[in-house]
Amino acid sequence: MNILLIQGANMEYLGRREPEHYGTTTAEDLDRMLMDEADRREMRLDIRYTNLEGEAIGWIYQADRDDGSGLIMNPGGFVYAAYALRDCLKGVSLPYVEVHMTNLDRREMRSATAGEADGMIMGLGVRSYVLALDAIKAIIAGDSATS
Amino acid sequence: MNILLIQGANMEYLGRREPEHYGTTTAEDLDRMLMDEADRREMRLDIRYTNLEGEAIGWIYQADRDDGSGLIMNPGGFVYAAYALRDCLKGVSLPYVEVHMTNLDRREMRSATAGEADGMIMGLGVRSYVLALDAIKAIIAGDSATS
Amino acid sequence: MNILLIQGANMEYLGRREPEHYGTTTAEDLDRMLMDEADRREMRLDIRYTNLEGEAIGWIYQADRDDGSGLIMNPGGFVYAAYALRDCLKGVSLPYVEVHMTNLDRREMRSATAGEADGMIMGLGVRSYVLALDAIKAIIAGDSATS
Amino acid sequence: MNILLIQGANMEYLGRREPEHYGTTTAEDLDRMLMDEADRREMRLDIRYTNLEGEAIGWIYQADRDDGSGLIMNPGGFVYAAYALRDCLKGVSLPYVEVHMTNLDRREMRSATAGEADGMIMGLGVRSYVLALDAIKAIIAGDSATS
Amino acid sequence: MNILLIQGANMEYLGRREPEHYGTTTAEDLDRMLMDEADRREMRLDIRYTNLEGEAIGWIYQADRDDGSGLIMNPGGFVYAAYALRDCLKGVSLPYVEVHMTNLDRREMRSATAGEADGMIMGLGVRSYVLALDAIKAIIAGDSATS
Amino acid sequence: MNILLIQGANMEYLGRREPEHYGTTTAEDLDRMLMDEADRREMRLDIRYTNLEGEAIGWIYQADRDDGSGLIMNPGGFVYAAYALRDCLKGVSLPYVEVHMTNLDRREMRSATAGEADGMIMGLGVRSYVLALDAIKAIIAGDSATS
Amino acid sequence: MNILLIQGANMEYLGRREPEHYGTTTAEDLDRMLMDEADRREMRLDIRYTNLEGEAIGWIYQADRDDGSGLIMNPGGFVYAAYALRDCLKGVSLPYVEVHMTNLDRREMRSATAGEADGMIMGLGVRSYVLALDAIKAIIAGDSATS
Amino acid sequence: MNILLIQGANMEYLGRREPEHYGTTTAEDLDRMLMDEADRREMRLDIRYTNLEGEAIGWIYQADRDDGSGLIMNPGGFVYAAYALRDCLKGVSLPYVEVHMTNLDRREMRSATAGEADGMIMGLGVRSYVLALDAIKAIIAGDSATS
Amino acid sequence: MNILLIQGANMEYLGRREPEHYGTTTAEDLDRMLMDEADRREMRLDIRYTNLEGEAIGWIYQADRDDGSGLIMNPGGFVYAAYALRDCLKGVSLPYVEVHMTNLDRREMRSATAGEADGMIMGLGVRSYVLALDAIKAIIAGDSATS
Amino acid sequence: MNILLIQGANMEYLGRREPEHYGTTTAEDLDRMLMDEADRREMRLDIRYTNLEGEAIGWIYQADRDDGSGLIMNPGGFVYAAYALRDCLKGVSLPYVEVHMTNLDRREMRSATAGEADGMIMGLGVRSYVLALDAIKAIIAGDSATS
Amino acid sequence: MNILLIQGANMEYLGRREPEHYGTTTAEDLDRMLMDEADRREMRLDIRYTNLEGEAIGWIYQADRDDGSGLIMNPGGFVYAAYALRDCLKGVSLPYVEVHMTNLDRREMRSATAGEADGMIMGLGVRSYVLALDAIKAIIAGDSATS
Amino acid sequence: MNILLIQGANMEYLGRREPEHYGTTTAEDLDRMLMDEADRREMRLDIRYTNLEGEAIGWIYQADRDDGSGLIMNPGGFVYAAYALRDCLKGVSLPYVEVHMTNLDRREMRSATAGEADGMIMGLGVRSYVLALDAIKAIIAGDSATS
Repeated sequence: MNILLIQGANMEYLGRREPEHYGTTTAEDLDRMLMDEADRREMRLDIRYTNLEGEAIGWIYQADRDDGSGLIMNPGGFVYAAYALRDCLKGVSLPYVEVHMTNLDRREMRSATAGEADGMIMGLGVRSYVLALDAIKAIIAGDSATS
Repeated sequence: MNILLIQGANMEYLGRREPEHYGTTTAEDLDRMLMDEADRREMRLDIRYTNLEGEAIGWIYQADRDDGSGLIMNPGGFVYAAYALRDCLKGVSLPYVEVHMTNLDRREMRSATAGEADGMIMGLGVRSYVLALDAIKAIIAGDSATS
Repeated sequence: MNILLIQGANMEYLGRREPEHYGTTTAEDLDRMLMDEADRREMRLDIRYTNLEGEAIGWIYQADRDDGSGLIMNPGGFVYAAYALRDCLKGVSLPYVEVHMTNLDRREMRSATAGEADGMIMGLGVRSYVLALDAIKAIIAGDSATS
Repeated sequence: MNILLIQGANMEYLGRREPEHYGTTTAEDLDRMLMDEADRREMRLDIRYTNLEGEAIGWIYQADRDDGSGLIMNPGGFVYAAYALRDCLKGVSLPYVEVHMTNLDRREMRSATAGEADGMIMGLGVRSYVLALDAIKAIIAGDSATS
Repeated sequence: MNILLIQGANMEYLGRREPEHYGTTTAEDLDRMLMDEADRREMRLDIRYTNLEGEAIGWIYQADRDDGSGLIMNPGGFVYAAYALRDCLKGVSLPYVEVHMTNLDRREMRSATAGEADGMIMGLGVRSYVLALDAIKAIIAGDSATS
Repeated sequence: MNILLIQGANMEYLGRREPEHYGTTTAEDLDRMLMDEADRREMRLDIRYTNLEGEAIGWIYQADRDDGSGLIMNPGGFVYAAYALRDCLKGVSLPYVEVHMTNLDRREMRSATAGEADGMIMGLGVRSYVLALDAIKAIIAGDSATS
Repeated sequence: MNILLIQGANMEYLGRREPEHYGTTTAEDLDRMLMDEADRREMRLDIRYTNLEGEAIGWIYQADRDDGSGLIMNPGGFVYAAYALRDCLKGVSLPYVEVHMTNLDRREMRSATAGEADGMIMGLGVRSYVLALDAIKAIIAGDSATS
Repeated sequence: MNILLIQGANMEYLGRREPEHYGTTTAEDLDRMLMDEADRREMRLDIRYTNLEGEAIGWIYQADRDDGSGLIMNPGGFVYAAYALRDCLKGVSLPYVEVHMTNLDRREMRSATAGEADGMIMGLGVRSYVLALDAIKAIIAGDSATS
Repeated sequence: MNILLIQGANMEYLGRREPEHYGTTTAEDLDRMLMDEADRREMRLDIRYTNLEGEAIGWIYQADRDDGSGLIMNPGGFVYAAYALRDCLKGVSLPYVEVHMTNLDRREMRSATAGEADGMIMGLGVRSYVLALDAIKAIIAGDSATS
Repeated sequence: MNILLIQGANMEYLGRREPEHYGTTTAEDLDRMLMDEADRREMRLDIRYTNLEGEAIGWIYQADRDDGSGLIMNPGGFVYAAYALRDCLKGVSLPYVEVHMTNLDRREMRSATAGEADGMIMGLGVRSYVLALDAIKAIIAGDSATS
Repeated sequence: MNILLIQGANMEYLGRREPEHYGTTTAEDLDRMLMDEADRREMRLDIRYTNLEGEAIGWIYQADRDDGSGLIMNPGGFVYAAYALRDCLKGVSLPYVEVHMTNLDRREMRSATAGEADGMIMGLGVRSYVLALDAIKAIIAGDSATS
Repeated sequence: MNILLIQGANMEYLGRREPEHYGTTTAEDLDRMLMDEADRREMRLDIRYTNLEGEAIGWIYQADRDDGSGLIMNPGGFVYAAYALRDCLKGVSLPYVEVHMTNLDRREMRSATAGEADGMIMGLGVRSYVLALDAIKAIIAGDSATS
């Protein structure tokens, strides 16, 4: 089970940027924790950071060509206007779970890519990522209880 | 750990209503499955169905007065205009996880109550409820990784 | 042929409320007249009044479970925001004719539930209800001229 | 009782145009059926088709000058922008029943002329026209139950 | 002078909910104080709480049938979408004074029912209710200075 | 207790302008009545009329500099676009009660300055001013029941 | 000086349609009066009525080809959506004065063609047409005081 | 016949400001010409300039108190937001003709006061004022052809 | 291959109207050129001009009844509000290519009928028509490269 | 070099009004500082305060008539609706630099007059004024680096 | 004749992404076909794919510096928000033809860059590109029939 | 004092692109001039150009990590939709002055990033950059006159 996890624009500064919203866990801490959690679930996780929407698009097409198992993404700053990324998600067959550390509804925001997600997990800080691992696993496993 | 789980308007007809969206699991099936999952997590679950927004409001204030541990709710048809319910959620100290079987963003809908949720789980069918149990447990336990 | 006829919010005050719009026929007068008209058409009519949207939802699911033949409703004050009721109507298999004593278009109003109606009759006062009996009968009878 | 029945823009292609919405009854079939139904009700029906809003306006003023008894119209494609026709309807004393074969609310459309109608019948296919005959007859007869 | 005083959705939790807006006076404290103030003005006050818009509608029609003298209401959470309640207020002959503890304009909110009020008192905390007693008394007494 | 009472644009024509809304009490009658009511409450009232928003702004800053006790204002025609006046109100420490003889909500109007008011009294004709005297007195006296 | 005067949609029913707005002068009366007024000013007036926007367009191009001196038009019902007519007016070199018997601003309406007018006269009943004769004469004469 | 003619904000700079729109006739030239035209029509004209909306309001109430015969106004810069002035116009019994040198529709502007005008003359440069003299004279004279 | 080419409202004045946008080629020049180009492609072209939307609708239904091969149209002034024409296009089986001499996007306009076009060619002056001949030929020929 | 510096509505209360936004420097302090800075740059500065938009308009026309060198303005409360002032600025030949102590974009506000400014300086507190002196000097000097 | 052909965001996945809209021709197939078609027309074609709007901007400036003959672009996913790219197109002297395989109007989309195109070709699948070669050739050749 | 100066999308073509707006000073000329001006002020300036929003984001985080003194940016084409860049600016502690050569308000544009600027300088051509050097210096120096 190969999962691509993309951290979108501004996620590289996690732990330093707006800690009242995003906490003080740094990107490095988060990656380490998630690799552990993935191991425990026997998933292979490929974590990447980018501030360029087009670069994320390229990675997703590559994962689709390589028959990846699934995609988890926190679009970060792509949330506002990443309609090209949204079309890319619509065009691939990878299951997709979108993750946000904060509850976008609480902040009256909408994610441009959310409409293409199979699952949405929001508001639980770094715990959102861990639940996303469970969610994508259930989708891939065709967990009968999923739908 | 006493959790109130409210199923909002139209949820009573789960399994019969729009099965292409909501699947064929009935309300009775779902309740049984969730009681099991709650047992496994050592939570006490009080599941209630209502089509009346005001009745849901009353239950939530009662749970708050009784020092309940947390609230999980699928607002169902309250999603459109339950602003009084939203104010109620703002006024209580119960942690709240909102659940939707489908991804509202995919259907271009917004939930009137979502802005008051601590966590949002959407799009994973009945599995959304199970992840919500994990989510609210983590919030209540003050899981250090949660925020 | 069992027809459920629901009179929505404020209909209980028919004949007293805004008579310049709704005339002076009272709810009691109307019920008596409609029972007669239904008899003449060999329909069984179950007329109910409620100011609670959620109560109407419950009645409709019950009628659907009981294999009722059809639903006629004047949503009355539910016209403004009864989106949960609209979802309920979408989820049941009962044919539905919506009735308004006044022409909503003339008053620049839209009915939240109208989009789920098989037929709409508006503007003809209490005569709207009588035409609705004919309309629902034609739909149920699969009247070849109906569509 | 002289009734003018106007079939607006695109109605000439009834039975061929979008049969999934409007059925396969042709304009000729419909006219024949309506002449029969009118006979049975002792009404004189003058059925006319036009794709020109201005031509419809002229006919209506002529009917008003000639002291016609009433007007039934399916505005067809005039539904979108026929505000001049709407003003014409406001200016004449002819009772007016508007007819649509489909329920405009279901298709999220509004009729530009509907605000001037005394009665609205929508969604019942060709049956809508037959109910409109009953409706306009009741209005003209000053049926005491009508308002 | 029989005055019906309705406390709308969420008012039952007064004193506990958002005390920075609504203070710490509980519903019980408020009721006691208002009964005293009413006594001093020789008014009979019937105070009722409800979270159900439809229940409030029923009470108002009953008061109107019973020839009540007036209505004071703090719509609470009904402020957002209680258009059915608004129509009910339009349909009864009871004088109506609407009360808000906070100034809705300061919070950029509008009350769905305010358009039917004879008088509006906002922003003065529990004092708003006391001024409302004076206001409704003046209206009922046909106080020549009132209009 | 020195209270500044400002009558905004068009108030000078009270009693002659739109008497169906504002009654026939003239500005002179009103002033005399209010001076009496103020005397009875041991308040010093300084009543001023202006059609110039900027003049009202100047008076308010002067009252603030002179440590006035409070401000009552019927903004009259300033209701539409007096955003500079609104900013002025935000910048001073004077308690402020806004008065309208008619209920603005009934006329679907909003007051540009209302968001800065501590209290709002609307719809009770000249009685609105008298209640405003009580309201501002309660605010200044720090009436414990006020918030 | 050849002036084309076009009476747009619904003007044929002048004197019968909404007399509270348009008075009781009929189209025939108006034409006679205007021919007299034109004679007195030594203008040749060609008055035409149409309910068809496209017919008006054809007449205007013809007048432009024939080197007419000017155009006066009361667009009547073309006011709402006659954007093709507006483009036609933009494309010809004829001076154009638009006339309305009522003040459109008072009725919160906008004329689709007004943006192409050299002069606008509104609100003065049939007198509007007479002033339009003076206005177009001044424009054609290159009256130095005109701009 | 005493006519008050008000030149609103920015009109003092006529002839210098945006001559491509307003020409090079100065305020002094215009006044002289209009006094002559008024003499010829046996009207007494009182021409005043102001940049202060509130000052215009005061003058109009004074003219109304003094039983003036009519008001002509070019609101100039008051066109954008003079809603207080509009209410003033609604409150007086003076006939009112509004004048604009340019056609506001051509510039996609709306006049805040136009809704209260009995007549509107636009687009004809200084000639607009002369036609306004004729228009107000006809209104005052109760010219039978005026409505 | 029988192609109907419709020139919509205002196209008759081509070469004279707004030459800075549409050039100086007249309608006659264009027709001659297109007949030549059609000959060279072995297509039969039937070119018609109309200012009446309803007339265009009639022609299109006739072409559909006569099993025409395709439709090219420059809607001209129908671009703004020809929703009835749009519905007509949706209802016929003729392939349709829409042509504009200018690029509507550059002028921030949208064509009401464009949503029903199989192909759109804009911005290339009279050359747009020639490319449209190639485009419709490719569609009809089922050119494998077309989709 | 004669510079007119206008301080718009509410600026008179600088140092007392919303010090968290505008600091504690009073109008008197600011004036003194700016006179010094102007001296150092050999500019003559005429500083004026007004709460009346119309008064500012009069001053600007006067400065333009007197061949002033330039205008600096902090519109203060004129920011919201001073469209007449905006037109005045468009009509004069004075170079204009607009100054705001706070960054309007940060507060999601737009200045009604900003569209007529040659230069905008925002967000730098009283330092904004000093930079404006440099900016207007550069514009007047035709500083080759300015555009 | 050197033509730069840019394939924007998501075009790299042509043939795999949403084949019901875009067909099954892959990017490689398309390139080969277009190189052939360009050869036949004696054009040099430089085809490039990018998911990065900024990269496309750089290429266009480079082509402009290198005196390229023209630009053809299918903006793909840049259609939604590529306003920087639009400004770039406005700033260069390269003729530009925009291509879409589908008709954007049919999908109710607008292209952010279309306003800067000299020609638009939409809806004809891969054939759109071929017509674009003809279109740009005509523009460059200054084809007298082009405008 | 290390200042990062970022020139956003399209700035690389300065001097060639829309010279009527931006003048003919090239990017190279500007850089040289600014390095001189910075030297004179004893600031170290690092000037960078990019068309990629994500690249700008990366540079800003790097400058923040490296404890840069401040940021000056002309967002250029990022003005329209650079919300990710805006969030980046919110997340760093660098003081930020935004520069535009033209006055965005004059062109009715808003900058997506302006809300995060400490200072805004607009409309003064290349002089805007020089004033920005003074502005950021004052902010960094904690110039007591700055706020």
